[in-house]
Amino acid sequence: MKRRVAIIETAFNPDPERHFRALEAAVREARSDGATLALLPELAFLPYFCQHTSREPFGWAEPLDGPSVARLSDWARTYGLVIVTTIFERRTAGLYHNTAVVLEADGSLAGLYRKMHIPDDPGYCEKYYFTPGDLGFVPIETSAGRLGVLVCWDQWFPEAARLMALAGAELLLYPTAIGWNPEDAPSTRNQELEAWLTIQRAHAIANGCPVLSANRRGRESDPSGHTPGIEFWGHGFVAGAMGEYLLEPRSTPFETACADVDDLEMERTRQAWPFLRDRRIDAYANLLTRALDPEAQAPET
Amino acid sequence: MKRRVAIIETAFNPDPERHFRALEAAVREARSDGATLALLPELAFLPYFCQHTSREPFGWAEPLDGPSVARLSDWARTYGLVIVTTIFERRTAGLYHNTAVVLEADGSLAGLYRKMHIPDDPGYCEKYYFTPGDLGFVPIETSAGRLGVLVCWDQWFPEAARLMALAGAELLLYPTAIGWNPEDAPSTRNQELEAWLTIQRAHAIANGCPVLSANRRGRESDPSGHTPGIEFWGHGFVAGAMGEYLLEPRSTPFETACADVDDLEMERTRQAWPFLRDRRIDAYANLLTRALDPEAQAPET
Repeated sequence: MKRRVAIIETAFNPDPERHFRALEAAVREARSDGATLALLPELAFLPYFCQHTSREPFGWAEPLDGPSVARLSDWARTYGLVIVTTIFERRTAGLYHNTAVVLEADGSLAGLYRKMHIPDDPGYCEKYYFTPGDLGFVPIETSAGRLGVLVCWDQWFPEAARLMALAGAELLLYPTAIGWNPEDAPSTRNQELEAWLTIQRAHAIANGCPVLSANRRGRESDPSGHTPGIEFWGHGFVAGAMGEYLLEPRSTPFETACADVDDLEMERTRQAWPFLRDRRIDAYANLLTRALDPEAQAPET
Repeated sequence: MKRRVAIIETAFNPDPERHFRALEAAVREARSDGATLALLPELAFLPYFCQHTSREPFGWAEPLDGPSVARLSDWARTYGLVIVTTIFERRTAGLYHNTAVVLEADGSLAGLYRKMHIPDDPGYCEKYYFTPGDLGFVPIETSAGRLGVLVCWDQWFPEAARLMALAGAELLLYPTAIGWNPEDAPSTRNQELEAWLTIQRAHAIANGCPVLSANRRGRESDPSGHTPGIEFWGHGFVAGAMGEYLLEPRSTPFETACADVDDLEMERTRQAWPFLRDRRIDAYANLLTRALDPEAQAPET
């Protein structure tokens, strides 16, 4: 069976009502194009507020029964498809997460994933805002398949993709927010984008599992004025179980783009390249270490 | 400091003397081009005998003090550079490995790596010949850097690259033997090659560590006649710590090709994209499992 999935990449609009209308229109379009799953970028309802550290954005955090999840639930039920994005979750006073929410086509909350790997570098001050997730790597069962939802920085960690695959994920999803420093040279831009595409496609290949990635798009300024802001680079895509593009990344803006994922490709690919059969789980214990100390590195031959 | 490295991809010649002469000429060329490290393909001295199962090739296995290591040692000392390939190691009667050997520029054996992940699919009957390695993932200290040597099928496992990086590897090296079924359609060929390049570049990206890959090249027939043989696809390359090509893969044959690896790029890249800082080693325990059983997969939300 082919499963049609949609990537949505509307740019952030600081006028909330216009922004919601544009996103809703993109979700509606996904459904009218036949998609049963729509992936929105990370923190789709908010500006990317992590460019600087300020107390103000904590006021935008919401509980899981807050208005953002209610709005997503409404769209999922109205248009009858599964929706995935992340919200700024207020779990309790002083405890906040970047939390992926998965809305079932009937509007119910199918599950959560709290971003496990949290970045912190200039322009991406996420460790200030987000407590690292504590739900582990657990796929979420939906009518559109068992979804291994991971978030942005997670995409650089093969461990995260592998853990979702071992737990039975049928699709890997990355709502994400990554961009260029507007002052970066074209060669730097290209190298960063290329690395980002390459490592996500590699998760498909290593795990024989399709990958969906939806990135923010458009320039957002840094409210602190310390940096020139971020030019979110878009280029969301869908890759099949061999890493081949089912939906090519695009440099030009789009609202909604669809691809058909073949349910059987994962099985066929894993039979042809049976990596899961051959993992040396007897020899992987050091994956649970930060690094081996130099004195432990000397080979004994 | 820039370190010049060489990839060698001479096709296998069934005339041993001619084959050795061609390989030696390629090593000599690497040295005259300024390389301090030469990476040869997997099992560089032998035909790829794993296309079928037969007792005959066991007669070609050698101990570590056998003629193959002696020859490599001689070349390393004569030309004054580090050489890496794999041999068919006879460890004792009935116990054989596909073993990477690293010869220091003075001719000494700097270290070993016994291939940990062993493939077994039509045309690659390696589980019949090779006992899985038991030395783990330990980099080898040489005058050309601390080498994380992995072999062929290992290249599909992010775990292997990560373990070498955590143990301090400064370069990841893949001597390899992979090719097309000559009857494969061009689209299949392209997809396989693309997956192979992508996942290896992703190891560079995930670990902020340069990658060298040298593949066999040329058609070798299947002695059993059961398959149309293998068209080894070459396309060896060198990637920098961001996965960018320092030496582009080539569809046309070459004997020796060099690239300059900047010792400082790893440090710079890991500071810019500090993935090692953020690994969730508290949440990776399931990497040591084969797979989670379905009943363990239900999310509790």
